Amino acid sequence: MQGLIDNLWIRKMGKREMKANHSVFVIMGGGSGTRFWPLSRELKPKQFLNILGQRPLIEETFLRISPLADEERVFLVINRAHRELTRKIFKDRGIQIFEEPFGRNTAPCVGLAAIHIKRRWGDIPMAVLPADHFIGDGELFRTTLRAGIELSRRGKMVTIGIPPIKPETGYGYIKRGRRCDSIRGQGVFEVDRFVEKPDEKRALLYIKEGNYLWNSGIFIFQVDLILNEIGKYLPKLYQGLMEIEGVLDRDQYPATLERIYSHLQSISIDYGIMERTREPVYTLLGNFGWSDVGSWQALFELKGDQRNANGNMLEGLTTIIDSRDSFIVNRSEKLVAVLGANQLLVVNTPDAVLVGDLNRSQEVRAIAEAIKRKGFMDWV
Amino acid sequence: MQGLIDNLWIRKMGKREMKANHSVFVIMGGGSGTRFWPLSRELKPKQFLNILGQRPLIEETFLRISPLADEERVFLVINRAHRELTRKIFKDRGIQIFEEPFGRNTAPCVGLAAIHIKRRWGDIPMAVLPADHFIGDGELFRTTLRAGIELSRRGKMVTIGIPPIKPETGYGYIKRGRRCDSIRGQGVFEVDRFVEKPDEKRALLYIKEGNYLWNSGIFIFQVDLILNEIGKYLPKLYQGLMEIEGVLDRDQYPATLERIYSHLQSISIDYGIMERTREPVYTLLGNFGWSDVGSWQALFELKGDQRNANGNMLEGLTTIIDSRDSFIVNRSEKLVAVLGANQLLVVNTPDAVLVGDLNRSQEVRAIAEAIKRKGFMDWV
Repeated sequence: MQGLIDNLWIRKMGKREMKANHSVFVIMGGGSGTRFWPLSRELKPKQFLNILGQRPLIEETFLRISPLADEERVFLVINRAHRELTRKIFKDRGIQIFEEPFGRNTAPCVGLAAIHIKRRWGDIPMAVLPADHFIGDGELFRTTLRAGIELSRRGKMVTIGIPPIKPETGYGYIKRGRRCDSIRGQGVFEVDRFVEKPDEKRALLYIKEGNYLWNSGIFIFQVDLILNEIGKYLPKLYQGLMEIEGVLDRDQYPATLERIYSHLQSISIDYGIMERTREPVYTLLGNFGWSDVGSWQALFELKGDQRNANGNMLEGLTTIIDSRDSFIVNRSEKLVAVLGANQLLVVNTPDAVLVGDLNRSQEVRAIAEAIKRKGFMDWV
Repeated sequence: MQGLIDNLWIRKMGKREMKANHSVFVIMGGGSGTRFWPLSRELKPKQFLNILGQRPLIEETFLRISPLADEERVFLVINRAHRELTRKIFKDRGIQIFEEPFGRNTAPCVGLAAIHIKRRWGDIPMAVLPADHFIGDGELFRTTLRAGIELSRRGKMVTIGIPPIKPETGYGYIKRGRRCDSIRGQGVFEVDRFVEKPDEKRALLYIKEGNYLWNSGIFIFQVDLILNEIGKYLPKLYQGLMEIEGVLDRDQYPATLERIYSHLQSISIDYGIMERTREPVYTLLGNFGWSDVGSWQALFELKGDQRNANGNMLEGLTTIIDSRDSFIVNRSEKLVAVLGANQLLVVNTPDAVLVGDLNRSQEVRAIAEAIKRKGFMDWV
């Protein structure tokens, strides 16, 4: 796990990885998922949880790209609601933190980062990365990012596609086209098209056909190119961004940002731009081991090597008898005891307990919604 | 449920039930089970839990027999460890409380009560009752007890046998013999023999044969008769009781009790006396609805009428989605959320959570033992 999680990049620095300056890394940390309820809450979403190692995922993401860039070239876009949480984690860092007043999905986030980057450095490559993903091999990941930055300098829109290892229905797919010359030893393909999350039958078909990749949600492009595409396909967003750009570094900035954002449509960069653009889009093969860690079950599978002889994974103060393939997460001072369970998920926090079928953990969101509907606001 | 639990006997008092004085009722409250962990603990066993209604089972038991006897004729035998708990419940009552320094099962408890009763009232009938059972119809129960007391006055040892409604393996059985004349409309049989808890096959056979009853653990006999039988079959206990009798109402009583009890063997009145005696033993048919409430599952079945349309029974702050036939007991300020569970048991207390297969709740004891073995003494 330690090797996988790669928060040990410092050791590898003996190799002296070159920084990829003249580019900017944008960590998209504005998400507000509830799929890890009761550990995740509206005020503490997944990227702020240390579910894969000792540090919050957003910090792991930062540390992973650190060897690539001076800190001032790392942008962190977060929701204003998570300001204190973020400052606490990054208090000794020179990274740039940008707050969105409301979550509007990734297209506005990318646009906002783009105008800030443009103002400071002009038209350079920007790599946008989700804050809450699992990356197995950090060094290979950075090599892939370098290749992507190089490719983006040639005017291409770049994405990273993950060779799928199972017919996952929770991911979008990328259908790859013609193979191109490798860059830095990394495979490159033209993108034929982006495909929405498939049903199981279709996912199986994609795996069989062999020319589909998982869409990792990581994109690399020059600032002017993406702003141009936003202008074409999301003109309202573009107009808003231009207004914001007009008040950058001025007192009106926060109020303008709030006004503009309050009217923005929530839309992802994938759906809003990447699926529609007529610019050349390329995909790099991401062989570094990847997951979006979308559910308790996904986390359980990722941590497979921590399971005991009965297939159980136990965290915290627990007593378990005659149970198999269960995931018990106890983050409280209380004792959790489990008897005769199979494929059960138990998550215990200081103020809530979740118990459920581990195979249905993607539905945890429904629990969070039910709680909100019932007005149990202390647990939202 | 209200009708079943019968803590509303006061209303029925309109009928003016006659007291059965010249007899004593001994509530055996010294048990120390852990089958309701985490709600029950060594310092708060089942008889002190309000799992069937608004009051602790031991109080329900007292209220149930109250119409039969003046309070001074109700004896409560408890473990010294539960002194405060007991005093709190019965603080305004004139009942007699006797403490055992150590739990030694029911034979010593019955013997101790017998010498106290003998000292005060001489050779009168005593009815011994477990403190933690469910009784459906309290009025019928009292009628049966009256019949038993009447029978015991004729020099018989009396037990109450429950016509079985399923091949339960958790109960001992009574094989009944010849039918005798009814008393107060209650069926009476000679007892052929007592039978230990059977396996499933044998339990099925008992049901088929039709002449087996569940052993309710309720016994009625004259004081001299039971002391005599203890003298015959448990001479060491008898000797100890005589020593204790010698210091009744004296300063040496507590020290003597402690010394004697420390050497006593743990043995039940069933096994130690009732199964061996050659005196005539009779059984009354107990048709009042009975259970020893031996597990969470037994409790779930008893409370069947509180289950919702999905077969779930929910207590406390819970959110449950797409689950069936599950028993969720939340006795904390925390929120319990359940997703996609079937026949699941969840018990949440302020310091522990139990999750398990409801059908295996008789094994909860193993959890309590594992916790003790692990040295988690806060949860024992």
